[in-house]
Amino acid sequence: MPAFKAPNRILMGPGPSNIAPRVLEALSEPVIGHLDPEFSQLMERVKHLLRQTFLTENSLTMPVSAPGSAGMETCFVNLIEPSDKVLVCINGVFGGRMLENIERIGAEAVVLEQPWGEAVDPERVRKLLREHSQICALAFVHAETSTGALSDAQTLAGIAREYGAITIVDCVTSLAGVPLRTDDWGLDAVYSGTQKCLSCVPGISPVTFGPRALERLQRRTTKVPSWFLDLNLVMQYWDGGDGARTYHHTAPVNALYALHEALVQLHEEGLERSWARHRHHHGALRSGLEALGFEFAVSDASARLPQLNAVRVPPGIEEAQVRSRLLSEFSLEIGPGLGPWAGEVWRIGLMGTSCTAESVLTFLSAYGEISGAGDAGVRSAGEYYETAEGAD
Amino acid sequence: MPAFKAPNRILMGPGPSNIAPRVLEALSEPVIGHLDPEFSQLMERVKHLLRQTFLTENSLTMPVSAPGSAGMETCFVNLIEPSDKVLVCINGVFGGRMLENIERIGAEAVVLEQPWGEAVDPERVRKLLREHSQICALAFVHAETSTGALSDAQTLAGIAREYGAITIVDCVTSLAGVPLRTDDWGLDAVYSGTQKCLSCVPGISPVTFGPRALERLQRRTTKVPSWFLDLNLVMQYWDGGDGARTYHHTAPVNALYALHEALVQLHEEGLERSWARHRHHHGALRSGLEALGFEFAVSDASARLPQLNAVRVPPGIEEAQVRSRLLSEFSLEIGPGLGPWAGEVWRIGLMGTSCTAESVLTFLSAYGEISGAGDAGVRSAGEYYETAEGAD
Repeated sequence: MPAFKAPNRILMGPGPSNIAPRVLEALSEPVIGHLDPEFSQLMERVKHLLRQTFLTENSLTMPVSAPGSAGMETCFVNLIEPSDKVLVCINGVFGGRMLENIERIGAEAVVLEQPWGEAVDPERVRKLLREHSQICALAFVHAETSTGALSDAQTLAGIAREYGAITIVDCVTSLAGVPLRTDDWGLDAVYSGTQKCLSCVPGISPVTFGPRALERLQRRTTKVPSWFLDLNLVMQYWDGGDGARTYHHTAPVNALYALHEALVQLHEEGLERSWARHRHHHGALRSGLEALGFEFAVSDASARLPQLNAVRVPPGIEEAQVRSRLLSEFSLEIGPGLGPWAGEVWRIGLMGTSCTAESVLTFLSAYGEISGAGDAGVRSAGEYYETAEGAD
Repeated sequence: MPAFKAPNRILMGPGPSNIAPRVLEALSEPVIGHLDPEFSQLMERVKHLLRQTFLTENSLTMPVSAPGSAGMETCFVNLIEPSDKVLVCINGVFGGRMLENIERIGAEAVVLEQPWGEAVDPERVRKLLREHSQICALAFVHAETSTGALSDAQTLAGIAREYGAITIVDCVTSLAGVPLRTDDWGLDAVYSGTQKCLSCVPGISPVTFGPRALERLQRRTTKVPSWFLDLNLVMQYWDGGDGARTYHHTAPVNALYALHEALVQLHEEGLERSWARHRHHHGALRSGLEALGFEFAVSDASARLPQLNAVRVPPGIEEAQVRSRLLSEFSLEIGPGLGPWAGEVWRIGLMGTSCTAESVLTFLSAYGEISGAGDAGVRSAGEYYETAEGAD
């Protein structure tokens, strides 16, 4: 059987994003033991870099050895017990997943449901917290990957704190793409993923727990239902220094080499410059999309994620066929809509390493050719790049 | 911050084992989308190769996107409900983990505890199955990574079937190192890991479910407590062919490139030849260890795993210091004892790519030098290689 050779794609879907050669090189360094002193040093560096990325001083900041969904589950199974009541905000697929987590734990969920494409409404959150006593946690998605909507995590966390609730926040798509200030905003439990704006291999989920989350974890009266995700055990491995680590499971050594390098790369650029770069190329893409007559699925422009642009498929366009031709003729991936938006929306990502002028112009040009819409999009983006204050 | 450069180790612990350059090359192929048609083809090839490796025709055969402990948890959370009763055999650390899984589900456990270093006793299993009615599953570890003991999975599965119980079998360390015949032996749910005898990156757990396990999964009356590990959902991604896959979580794309290549490599050698190679080099290592006066921690020679040799630390030897010198002076890793065997036992692995004459001779020579025991071990292993019928 022949070796698998992957094609070179321009990845402009909802993740994974393109991975820089230096990160792939780090990934393929020789494997070493998960208790090797050299690996122990790498772990300390990864924790340090993750803290800088989450903008936190939380001691419990580490990468869960599984994808973002496991990061989500880590937060819920460690912080929520069957007797708890949680307010969960659903404005897309991932809020719905949070509800699944709460229900599977056997806890009570108070659900705030909003139309897809809207940000979570702080006033409705406040109203529900006022109406329902004893809500111990507010769960919401900072950057909804299914809709491209950004919610105001700072305001939501402030309201939760007023009512004595901790926050569990999905930052899978937001981390490194838009401002996220864990400590300044008082977020209590945050999880993310490596394959979005960090531009690392999929399969790892960075999480951080603040003091109030830690206190809840320590005050539990029931065992964490998952052995694999029980942070009381996981932290005996991640928290011990060299020589003091206790084996829990075998860490995904090579993926953590890659995460280290992706984080080093991010901080060479600088977190704020990364946010600015995402805004900048989003501006160019938006300009091109609007010139082509596209309508954004998130109508409130201030709630649009620069790194994930959800647009309505224009009438008369065969959406699956266009995606398929972009892939086969231009080796360019964009994402389809999920759930109720399947067939109606495209999700065009500009995440991490994929967030470049080349991506923007290649997509607009390729789409113009396939759809017959011509070069209006490319021209408009080009003008944007000439006049806008650059981030590069 | 500088890039992390990993040292070149000879990995003779309990895993990870050394990874072949071709597998590391595959690992660092460019990432593509988890719904890309090319990736879909890779997924089909991986499932096909895993079936050949487990020696099964089970349709539900796939790699869980997380380490072996998550593979274990996948089996338990999908197959065991709170009202169930499970017979679990504990003869080392990993049987104890199985018990943790059962307890966290809230199911009832009947525990067969045996001294560390022994194989699971089929007659004691039979007795407990006879005494306790309504045991729905027998859980045991085929190859105990903490002790180096091999249990007779075929006989145990036969007994379980007599009593109408399914089997949940930990084959993390056995797969590709010793015979494992899922279908011939009638094993119902089997999980493994990639970083042992498959010599792939840590972080993935291949599992296979037979028809009886599948039937239990479909007959469940409660939801699987873990959303991330719920096979009803996971299989909508892994079971759909090209175009029919439903997104569940983002697959660890690059790790699966590597798994594919590691499996191709394994089947180029042939499964039976891989088993024979492990036996062969184990013979040489055993010969050398015995010449140095080592005692195996598993006293029954027929129950010793060729790929994981647990030996008692000789009196007067500073065990941590020797391991540390092996690492710093020879870049060679062996494993310490776990739990009650900490400080008393070494675990010397010969797994997958690490299972070579070079590993055996390097370890024996390095140990002879550090301990002052001289070259008796190397000489004895050398004689073995000259006289034994080779596997290479």
